[in-house]
Amino acid sequence: MENDLAIVDLPCAADLVTKFANDHVADVVDALNDYPEETAAEILALLPLERGTDVLDQPNLENPADLVKLLPEGRAAALLEGMSADRRADIFRHLSEPPRGALLARLSPEARTAVEQLLSYPEASAGSIMTTEFVSVLSTATVGQTLHYIRVVERTRETVYAIYVLDSKTKRLIKAVTLRQLIMGDPEASIMSLGPQRKPVVVSPLMDREEVARLISKYDLLALPVVDEKHHMLGIVTVDDIIDAIVDEGTEDAQKFGGMEALDEPYMQIGIVGMLKKRAGWLSVLFVAEMLTAWAMQFFQGELEKAIVLALFIPLVMSSGGNSGSQATSLIIRALALGEIRLRDWWRVALREIPTGAALGAILGVIAIIRIVLWQWLGFFNYGVEWPRLALAIGCSLVGIVTFGSLSGSMLPFIMKRIGFDPASASAPFVATLVDVTGLVIYFSIALVFLNGTLL
Amino acid sequence: MENDLAIVDLPCAADLVTKFANDHVADVVDALNDYPEETAAEILALLPLERGTDVLDQPNLENPADLVKLLPEGRAAALLEGMSADRRADIFRHLSEPPRGALLARLSPEARTAVEQLLSYPEASAGSIMTTEFVSVLSTATVGQTLHYIRVVERTRETVYAIYVLDSKTKRLIKAVTLRQLIMGDPEASIMSLGPQRKPVVVSPLMDREEVARLISKYDLLALPVVDEKHHMLGIVTVDDIIDAIVDEGTEDAQKFGGMEALDEPYMQIGIVGMLKKRAGWLSVLFVAEMLTAWAMQFFQGELEKAIVLALFIPLVMSSGGNSGSQATSLIIRALALGEIRLRDWWRVALREIPTGAALGAILGVIAIIRIVLWQWLGFFNYGVEWPRLALAIGCSLVGIVTFGSLSGSMLPFIMKRIGFDPASASAPFVATLVDVTGLVIYFSIALVFLNGTLL
Repeated sequence: MENDLAIVDLPCAADLVTKFANDHVADVVDALNDYPEETAAEILALLPLERGTDVLDQPNLENPADLVKLLPEGRAAALLEGMSADRRADIFRHLSEPPRGALLARLSPEARTAVEQLLSYPEASAGSIMTTEFVSVLSTATVGQTLHYIRVVERTRETVYAIYVLDSKTKRLIKAVTLRQLIMGDPEASIMSLGPQRKPVVVSPLMDREEVARLISKYDLLALPVVDEKHHMLGIVTVDDIIDAIVDEGTEDAQKFGGMEALDEPYMQIGIVGMLKKRAGWLSVLFVAEMLTAWAMQFFQGELEKAIVLALFIPLVMSSGGNSGSQATSLIIRALALGEIRLRDWWRVALREIPTGAALGAILGVIAIIRIVLWQWLGFFNYGVEWPRLALAIGCSLVGIVTFGSLSGSMLPFIMKRIGFDPASASAPFVATLVDVTGLVIYFSIALVFLNGTLL
Repeated sequence: MENDLAIVDLPCAADLVTKFANDHVADVVDALNDYPEETAAEILALLPLERGTDVLDQPNLENPADLVKLLPEGRAAALLEGMSADRRADIFRHLSEPPRGALLARLSPEARTAVEQLLSYPEASAGSIMTTEFVSVLSTATVGQTLHYIRVVERTRETVYAIYVLDSKTKRLIKAVTLRQLIMGDPEASIMSLGPQRKPVVVSPLMDREEVARLISKYDLLALPVVDEKHHMLGIVTVDDIIDAIVDEGTEDAQKFGGMEALDEPYMQIGIVGMLKKRAGWLSVLFVAEMLTAWAMQFFQGELEKAIVLALFIPLVMSSGGNSGSQATSLIIRALALGEIRLRDWWRVALREIPTGAALGAILGVIAIIRIVLWQWLGFFNYGVEWPRLALAIGCSLVGIVTFGSLSGSMLPFIMKRIGFDPASASAPFVATLVDVTGLVIYFSIALVFLNGTLL
């Protein structure tokens, strides 16, 4: 029976391998992601080596380190050896012992050095997403020699669309030429005659990938060279890595703005315990902060007992501040991320948010007053004899609270950035909590002014 | 005096033109963005024509349509004629009469047709961000002929890194070859011998740019061909357009999630009135919805009068539901946008969010009970003789409300998507409002159960 099963099982994975032969590698990866990891690893072991390398090289492949663990060690080492340097380093980043050390030992010395070098850079830095496989030539080369060289090394380079020219003596990066410029050039001419005369745009390996993305997008580059302090090339960041980085940053920012830690894993893949860890922290912090509302209300307990009608509008008035704050925060986080505004622009923003908030508060205030007047006239509810004063107090509170909400919501990302946090940590729930406590105090204070001597 | 001023003024703009001569065009654009529009237009008029075209071609240039308006008509027409088709169409999209019609009339017939064609596609579609300047050759061409052709047309094409092969009879797109494959090929060989044998990835002009971005990223392309129903090529979307599109979508989603309409303009550039229009709508809708809280509380007015202590915890209990809902919503919006989950996965998500929410609620419940017990024991506040029951009621309410918050927060994006809205419209304030009303009902109902016959 066991033999029967094995016979039934084996052609199955082999069949899939045949089926995949002509598909785009990205579609093969899509299919593999839908299989259990054991089957996916089996297929990966049976694919032709070059094809297997391509599959492992795809950033969309889920949990590549887990697949590598399931492969025979010799096969795993051969696949890793053929991969691009950046994805290989990424797999080692997520690979645990065993077989981490054993696989690292099986790599060629160059591949091993590349992995160790790339892993030495902090996550989300240019160094951690760069690849060391780029095309560089010395400044003494001609256009024709460069083209010939590209034809020789093409297979082993992630991109050949950018060619980096190094000073023939110091080996420093002095020029970047595109393949487009190269094929337009006279084969006899010096490589130095091509391209613009200005210095190439470069980044340090420690630069944040968000900043790298901004530069690639600004200068419309297909790749950006990463250099050390002496302008020696360490690697390149390519545009496809940057798209992945931008999408990842977008996900992180959205989750942080939602009031939690960034998940760092697809939603359906993280376990319930992992999910709780990412969410419980911020939720508890916000909860403890929100306890200040209970404390604030204790102070106004006397007023509440005298005029229970005030309690009815607490959620309404309070939430308006949070909502307008959430709008302002999302605007400012994004404007800061895009570089539209800088830290020093905080007062310009404040000067915009105060009138905007006051106008928005006035709109809500008018709606609230109309509601109370209507309900009272139509007899839906009796707000007591002092209902005109109550309506006025609520209208004025809304102006105050929405103005305060807009202002503090817009200032919070600046404060987070100033004290060294990600502005995106200024989440919607964070702003709401901040504004809730203050909103209550504003509400009761204004109510005291309007209703003093009557209800209160 | 007037002459003096003119003499002082003119060399100034001219000086700047000289200063910009060797800068990267993206840096020139950065500098222009900092000048008043009149000065920027003056500089644009004085720059060499080709340089001016490059400047106008940069996506980072602010308000290019306004600059074009300030230019002499002849100069404006010459600049527009030389631009890439997609950016030119984008300028006409934002250009009003006059000089829109006059400038359109001055364009060459091909350029005019291209503008009209691109403007006919809906915003944010593949058609609206594509360019019509791509390299295509017939299937009868050799590798050498194709390379020669590229050298001839290079100046007028946005990218030459992707070459599209059309069937020599039907003119349908049958193959996509990269420049990389081309320079590796034998010059005598047929262009059809290069590249993979599978069909090229194509998109329809009506496909949403988000979907185009996903395909470009998935298949690691530098450009994606846009074809009509008969597989005739209409244009290409290049990777740099896609980066801009991804960043724009990220901004829109963040602003919608913050509870407002997408701004579509940089924060510092939109006027206060424009800002109010984008923010007041949602804020008012949420405000009116939140009025249900006042209505819900009217029902429990009797209970509130008997046990005013219940009012103290309303903001605390209510906000926890909104916060957990905001977390769940941001998770699901992002997972839907990335294609990690689909509409049909809603029940899987529900099965994850219910236990997660219950566990998060239990954590907050324990914190709340500890707080009440501590305050009571330490004498900070007297919650009355029934304080143990009160603490229990609040703890249990939190479990119920946070579970409900997580569940409804996670389901809202699915519902939005199902009824045809952008899931990102399920904003944090929207979820909070939804959960506030239900949270109050849950709170008072549980309080009734626990405190019935004692406080209530």
